[in-house]
Amino acid sequence: MSEPIYDVAQLGHVELLTPDLEASARFFTDTYGLFPVGETKDAVYLRAWNDDVLTSLRLTATTHPGLGHMAWRTTSPQALQRPVDALEARGIEGEWHDGDLGHGAAYRFAGIGGHVQEVYFETEKYVAPPGEEPYLPNQAQRFIPHGAAAAHIDHINVLVPDVAAASAFQQETLGFKLRERLTPAGGDEVGAWLSVMTKAHDLALTREPSPTEGRLHHLAYAVESHMDVIRAADMFLQLGTPVEFGPAKHSRTQGFFVYVIEPGGNRVEIFTDGIHIFQPDWEPVTWTTEADGRGTAWGTPVPATFHSWATPPLEASLEV
Amino acid sequence: MSEPIYDVAQLGHVELLTPDLEASARFFTDTYGLFPVGETKDAVYLRAWNDDVLTSLRLTATTHPGLGHMAWRTTSPQALQRPVDALEARGIEGEWHDGDLGHGAAYRFAGIGGHVQEVYFETEKYVAPPGEEPYLPNQAQRFIPHGAAAAHIDHINVLVPDVAAASAFQQETLGFKLRERLTPAGGDEVGAWLSVMTKAHDLALTREPSPTEGRLHHLAYAVESHMDVIRAADMFLQLGTPVEFGPAKHSRTQGFFVYVIEPGGNRVEIFTDGIHIFQPDWEPVTWTTEADGRGTAWGTPVPATFHSWATPPLEASLEV
Amino acid sequence: MSEPIYDVAQLGHVELLTPDLEASARFFTDTYGLFPVGETKDAVYLRAWNDDVLTSLRLTATTHPGLGHMAWRTTSPQALQRPVDALEARGIEGEWHDGDLGHGAAYRFAGIGGHVQEVYFETEKYVAPPGEEPYLPNQAQRFIPHGAAAAHIDHINVLVPDVAAASAFQQETLGFKLRERLTPAGGDEVGAWLSVMTKAHDLALTREPSPTEGRLHHLAYAVESHMDVIRAADMFLQLGTPVEFGPAKHSRTQGFFVYVIEPGGNRVEIFTDGIHIFQPDWEPVTWTTEADGRGTAWGTPVPATFHSWATPPLEASLEV
Amino acid sequence: MSEPIYDVAQLGHVELLTPDLEASARFFTDTYGLFPVGETKDAVYLRAWNDDVLTSLRLTATTHPGLGHMAWRTTSPQALQRPVDALEARGIEGEWHDGDLGHGAAYRFAGIGGHVQEVYFETEKYVAPPGEEPYLPNQAQRFIPHGAAAAHIDHINVLVPDVAAASAFQQETLGFKLRERLTPAGGDEVGAWLSVMTKAHDLALTREPSPTEGRLHHLAYAVESHMDVIRAADMFLQLGTPVEFGPAKHSRTQGFFVYVIEPGGNRVEIFTDGIHIFQPDWEPVTWTTEADGRGTAWGTPVPATFHSWATPPLEASLEV
Repeated sequence: MSEPIYDVAQLGHVELLTPDLEASARFFTDTYGLFPVGETKDAVYLRAWNDDVLTSLRLTATTHPGLGHMAWRTTSPQALQRPVDALEARGIEGEWHDGDLGHGAAYRFAGIGGHVQEVYFETEKYVAPPGEEPYLPNQAQRFIPHGAAAAHIDHINVLVPDVAAASAFQQETLGFKLRERLTPAGGDEVGAWLSVMTKAHDLALTREPSPTEGRLHHLAYAVESHMDVIRAADMFLQLGTPVEFGPAKHSRTQGFFVYVIEPGGNRVEIFTDGIHIFQPDWEPVTWTTEADGRGTAWGTPVPATFHSWATPPLEASLEV
Repeated sequence: MSEPIYDVAQLGHVELLTPDLEASARFFTDTYGLFPVGETKDAVYLRAWNDDVLTSLRLTATTHPGLGHMAWRTTSPQALQRPVDALEARGIEGEWHDGDLGHGAAYRFAGIGGHVQEVYFETEKYVAPPGEEPYLPNQAQRFIPHGAAAAHIDHINVLVPDVAAASAFQQETLGFKLRERLTPAGGDEVGAWLSVMTKAHDLALTREPSPTEGRLHHLAYAVESHMDVIRAADMFLQLGTPVEFGPAKHSRTQGFFVYVIEPGGNRVEIFTDGIHIFQPDWEPVTWTTEADGRGTAWGTPVPATFHSWATPPLEASLEV
Repeated sequence: MSEPIYDVAQLGHVELLTPDLEASARFFTDTYGLFPVGETKDAVYLRAWNDDVLTSLRLTATTHPGLGHMAWRTTSPQALQRPVDALEARGIEGEWHDGDLGHGAAYRFAGIGGHVQEVYFETEKYVAPPGEEPYLPNQAQRFIPHGAAAAHIDHINVLVPDVAAASAFQQETLGFKLRERLTPAGGDEVGAWLSVMTKAHDLALTREPSPTEGRLHHLAYAVESHMDVIRAADMFLQLGTPVEFGPAKHSRTQGFFVYVIEPGGNRVEIFTDGIHIFQPDWEPVTWTTEADGRGTAWGTPVPATFHSWATPPLEASLEV
Repeated sequence: MSEPIYDVAQLGHVELLTPDLEASARFFTDTYGLFPVGETKDAVYLRAWNDDVLTSLRLTATTHPGLGHMAWRTTSPQALQRPVDALEARGIEGEWHDGDLGHGAAYRFAGIGGHVQEVYFETEKYVAPPGEEPYLPNQAQRFIPHGAAAAHIDHINVLVPDVAAASAFQQETLGFKLRERLTPAGGDEVGAWLSVMTKAHDLALTREPSPTEGRLHHLAYAVESHMDVIRAADMFLQLGTPVEFGPAKHSRTQGFFVYVIEPGGNRVEIFTDGIHIFQPDWEPVTWTTEADGRGTAWGTPVPATFHSWATPPLEASLEV
């Protein structure tokens, strides 16, 4: 076997686009449970209480919802160059930029499927203001939950026309490990779950059914327990956000989840208890038994919108 | 910063010594919740339902309890040589052996503090017998819990005369990352929590208060939730094993735990929900506020035995 | 207000009919998690570990699934006569019988909707055999869970042609309290949830859509926590019983649940955390917002079978 | 057997005394998680989100902490007279008063042990303001937790010189049911747990070790799950209130708990999952195996303060 690559440490941050920045910022702050840490004229930066970095989410005002970019933090400054070299060796023409609130120089590129990605290392950490320290010093921020109490950024799911190709690209250039995949009998791969270290997934790839590129299926933050997901569902409903799907248990990853659509139109998840994979030679699990690629562990029905809605919505995608 | 090393993937298995092999094997099988997978005249091999390898625990009959050895699985065959080279460059004289039930060639050596350690890569995986497959193919074994339902091997805690030296040794030779340490004001480091990948700890080092070496504080298996730890405590008591400590919450690692002493004399833990550390440049947390080094998050008192009992018991240690 | 009546203490036991006694007994023992306590040629008696009485379930062999009878235990010997008087004053012609395994003299009658009911007081309690005592003496039986680990009998749901009439009947004769009801806008009551003491429900009445009587919708046993329901779902699937519905949260009662169909054809539930109602003048909650009468708190879809399947199945019902 | 009496429905409300009304009110509001519903010059009235009545706690400013009174709501207006008759038949000279914020006419008396008690029926219910309705209409108030998120008033524990006598008094006059008692071998009863309906306890009586009367051990509010107690403990610590005892599991009642001392000096508990007793002829469990009367299920040590601190503190008690 070839040696696994550990150049990428984590999903560092994500940029979501929104046609209603104010409503999206209010949702992520009051309902989803994040904390604002900065803003510009057309962007708001947020963090979850248990994020280890200053900010894990940038909301950017534009005409439609969708993914601005997803950003992978490397394990060291040295490890930052290797993915860049691998990308360029493959003919990808990315570009360096100086960074943004919360992080330094980043290499930005478009992967298979058209989504903008970044790799970077330099990161600003969160420092609790005097008087607001956590009672346990191994916590990033004190835990005083509100809303759905999203705890830390966890994973992202995007749509790609060719799942197998996009999966191979992430593995070969950034060192992602393939954990599970869905390949209906006699058909092409329609889903892939990949991670950079020990998680069940940092990135999920789902087949794009439409002639478009770059769409987002959902962004997920994690919480600490099943009861936190159940409480999150109750909070979403109490605070006026309908639940799209869940709480229920995923078959892939075994995570327990709930999904809602934020006011800007992007789907977000509260997730917990996905498996951790410690063995370095994990054999990817191939699922073939389900037709639609997003089965649930207990058989909870998947709503039709879960297959039909992604951002930007199709009309917006095509007009670009 | 220097690049983090990812040569070691996980705590692969542990060998515990016991003066009563039959009673220890019965405890680990019926009460702790493991499954026997093999035996010889003086050893029994066990696995937890969610272990990804064939066996994570060997019980060996001898005159006293204690640690036989702890074994670290590397991330690849290639990664196995680098720790060996680092150990030998440091003057450690280990030796290769052919392996044991469940794993292949291993390099065996004594670290700072005298505990026998191994590094190895080749591992036999568990394959469910026909008709006993898990209903989810991403599970190693079907989950039909019994006893305390230990789910997978998690971490080990050993006593060392010089915590700082032993911690540096593990970091420098095997690539452990220091996550937390306890250094009472004005004193030496008395505790260190280290991990190989993203966990809060795979190895904890606690200062040995006696003029001896090589002692074990405890071995821990993980379960999936706080409720599983609570159920484990009830099961231990229902099945006749007194609880030594817990359920309660650790301050270091934030894990939720319960400890018992198995019939052979070794302390074992059921543990859950320690933090995961995804940032690659985590600054080790230094705790200085507690005198004894094993404080609990909520203030639950630590029983005196937790500080006084380790294996082999002191008399046995000194007579060696 | 008139004084509430506290003559009935609890749902004491239920008799389920089954066309396959052996398969049903094996399911309730191995998968649902009950313990057999007695049997005759055509019946098996079972208890849950936390039932306070000797037996809460009788399975009786017959040609089809369905409800044999449901039995209400009174709060005292004296309280047994008052419901009988109330029933007879209403023209109900029941009859006394000598009892069965686990209980003494019982008055048997058919209520509105045709289901056979009993009221009785004398009951045999469970006494743990020597060596099998629970470690806590306030537990009926030691808790060593297996299968879905049903803990104690909780409630029953039956179909009745006229919900309002059947609800009034149970209130007026046996002292049931109406807790919640479902009355679609402009329509008749289609669901009623009633209890005898402080629970959200001991008895649920749902409108029978077909020209038949006496059918069972489901029987429910309770467990102690949400995590126990989640584990029950995993156990059902691991042990080969498909989940029909759930885990999810009821809107009425706020309970968390999972349903399966036992091999004999009867629907059974594992339920937890329904609300308790301590105020004596609780105003029944009237739900009008849903069309189908069995909405869920988070919007989890209700499977079509949940509305179409009841026992005896319709063909069997009509041929009687 | 004599018929059980169901005249008392619930612990309706409690009045706590405090030498620092402002600090106590702030604690119960911000940290314990209650909501203020009214105030006078020297009193603050509060409710928990899941209390079915308008207010369950009155804080009254005075020179020392302690119990003002505990108030039992009857099951009907008619049921109010029977306890009064029983009390007066026993020579108790109580008096009627017109009520207070949240309830109507009440009969006030001192029981065995000197604590002021009330019985009453008329109660004001909580009505959510427009726009603040719960998303589930069977909830009293919408659930948006803060602080320790106390959910509803649950039970009270007071010290009495003669436990057996005080227990008999509550049973004979108000219809309490004795559920469990602690009687060390060869000694007097030192603890009794009594309830009015199906709970494990609404009232606990513990032997007063000092020559005084009328002292409070603790007041408890319930939450919905073990995880809620664990979160409450974290919240207490994060918000600056040290934990006195727990989270741990009671042996009596099997409840899971955490205790803190509020700024006025009274001990308060967050409690969950005590057993429910549905059988009407429950045989009281007599515990004889422990020396101190407050053992824990898993052996978690009881802090010395739990035995030594009650309110009013001893000096204040004696000087009265």
